[in-house]
Amino acid sequence: MTEIASYGKFGLLEHLTKDITHANSTTLKGVGDDAAVLEYGTKATLVSSVLLLEGIHFDLTYFALKFVGYKAAVVAFADIYAMNGQPQQLTVNIGISQRFAVEHIDEIFIGLQFACKNYGVDIVKVDVTASLTGLCITTSCVGSADKDQIVHQNTAKEPDLICVSGDLGGAYMGLQLLEREKAVHQGETDFTPDFAGKEYLLERQLRPEARQDIVALLAEHGIVPTAMVNVKDGLSSDMLHICRQSKVGCAIYEERIPIDFQTATMAETFNMNLITAALNGGDDYELLFTVPLSMHEKIEDLASEGIRLIGHIRAADEGCALITRDATEIPLVAQGWTQEGE
Amino acid sequence: MTEIASYGKFGLLEHLTKDITHANSTTLKGVGDDAAVLEYGTKATLVSSVLLLEGIHFDLTYFALKFVGYKAAVVAFADIYAMNGQPQQLTVNIGISQRFAVEHIDEIFIGLQFACKNYGVDIVKVDVTASLTGLCITTSCVGSADKDQIVHQNTAKEPDLICVSGDLGGAYMGLQLLEREKAVHQGETDFTPDFAGKEYLLERQLRPEARQDIVALLAEHGIVPTAMVNVKDGLSSDMLHICRQSKVGCAIYEERIPIDFQTATMAETFNMNLITAALNGGDDYELLFTVPLSMHEKIEDLASEGIRLIGHIRAADEGCALITRDATEIPLVAQGWTQEGE
Repeated sequence: MTEIASYGKFGLLEHLTKDITHANSTTLKGVGDDAAVLEYGTKATLVSSVLLLEGIHFDLTYFALKFVGYKAAVVAFADIYAMNGQPQQLTVNIGISQRFAVEHIDEIFIGLQFACKNYGVDIVKVDVTASLTGLCITTSCVGSADKDQIVHQNTAKEPDLICVSGDLGGAYMGLQLLEREKAVHQGETDFTPDFAGKEYLLERQLRPEARQDIVALLAEHGIVPTAMVNVKDGLSSDMLHICRQSKVGCAIYEERIPIDFQTATMAETFNMNLITAALNGGDDYELLFTVPLSMHEKIEDLASEGIRLIGHIRAADEGCALITRDATEIPLVAQGWTQEGE
Repeated sequence: MTEIASYGKFGLLEHLTKDITHANSTTLKGVGDDAAVLEYGTKATLVSSVLLLEGIHFDLTYFALKFVGYKAAVVAFADIYAMNGQPQQLTVNIGISQRFAVEHIDEIFIGLQFACKNYGVDIVKVDVTASLTGLCITTSCVGSADKDQIVHQNTAKEPDLICVSGDLGGAYMGLQLLEREKAVHQGETDFTPDFAGKEYLLERQLRPEARQDIVALLAEHGIVPTAMVNVKDGLSSDMLHICRQSKVGCAIYEERIPIDFQTATMAETFNMNLITAALNGGDDYELLFTVPLSMHEKIEDLASEGIRLIGHIRAADEGCALITRDATEIPLVAQGWTQEGE
């Protein structure tokens, strides 16, 4: 292993950034200056930012460093896609404590660069700093969008339909699985947990993807959502965010919430409420969006492509609720503070 | 004090952002969505990012939270000014541990908003997350510049002149002073240290400013630097950064390095080498830049406005050196990793 001190800060930055090339014409000049230089013509510019902290957003017992890097990039991209934009540039700042060596930072960068390659994003600024208490990684993503195609969170209207991509609760269940294995093997330094048949859940937690494909699919079918959000805090919290901002209420149908088979199986194994996991799990990075009622048929046609109609917008005074299978209304509740960090 | 859990994440964000208004026409839509929406016409867009960690970049024993907020914003602006640009938008992510209450976050925001008001910058995205280990604050600043006015770090040429704004070493000496008072009053919960006559040093450390005025001054006099950098790691490190990137060497004259009277007095009190403090101190956020030799007279005329000519660029094989008062050449050395965090 190579001590970070042997490189010095600038040596480390040079080492980390030497292979970075740019793919986007909007990137005029990247790493090397105090700020990156971008150019946008008639398009609007989007900026998102992400902060991941060790012990809160990832546990290095089971989170490989390259996955931390991958996630730090993808989560920032997901916020740009959720605005119906295209991510283009990424800035990265890493805080590292003494227990990390140059090779560790290289691992993080492998993940960051792999994510950027997959999504066609340029890394344009990199900085590192010392940290007293573990690893901390922050990214900021700049994207572009046609001004009239941008989708906000405060523009849902009654009686819009509510849709979600992919499935929910998987990342949360993956976390439970990892935490259980960690507890079971406490104290062992080299254990091989049995994750056979549960790979999907691990992938949801450890290597999330941003739904670039869904944004492309909607565009292809001429669907511009009326409102959209990146599902990071959980379906409940993020739906409430749209409703609060749009000054509307909503009804979400329990039986329509998309849940993967592995998620359901694990919930049973853990004796956990499946719907609670899907509503409050978070970290799924799916797209939750609303479309005009007239799009009903178009949306139903996209069910096979991973878009599910799960409810509808209603008047604010009707409230925000989950409609259970037996037609009971249960108010949606945002997650408390302590769970937010998960 | 108000528990953060009583607000919930979205309640806290709403509370923090309710008074945020926008001053820049380039800000189309700010807080409330997954990403901020900006618009840049024919100008280039600049992005900088900053990560400040408790215990590394600030010590809350003497760093008031509003100063932490102020600094987190100003340091990001300083990187945009160092590219000869104008900061326009700021995104903020804060990681907070359990010992912080809503009122603490409010203090940080008072500092952030005060800085943004002073520099005419819009806060366009805010996020908060739980932290296990203290306070962590990250900002990302978007700025604009005319494409042909942007100044990079890899464009210094022999025989350019090297200039610096303001004075150096003050922030470092302020830190020494604060650390001494902390050590002297160790264990006391309510002490009043005697800082009379040393206010300037404290201000340099606790409330740094970005040199907006110098960027304006240079523009007014028709001076476009050939290369420029924000002095955050210290004169030595940042000068070496320009030289390494531009593939040139440099000579800096000891007797020309601008040092404030209070800095010199404190160095004597502490029995520290004054030039070492000025060369390696860091955190001064002054502008270090090069101009063509033909600008010699113009630059000398700006001495009274706080711009000092301190040396010149030379061939790479002549090396990067400090020329002492007795004409000895001492190679410039970048700061080691452990000191970087200060």
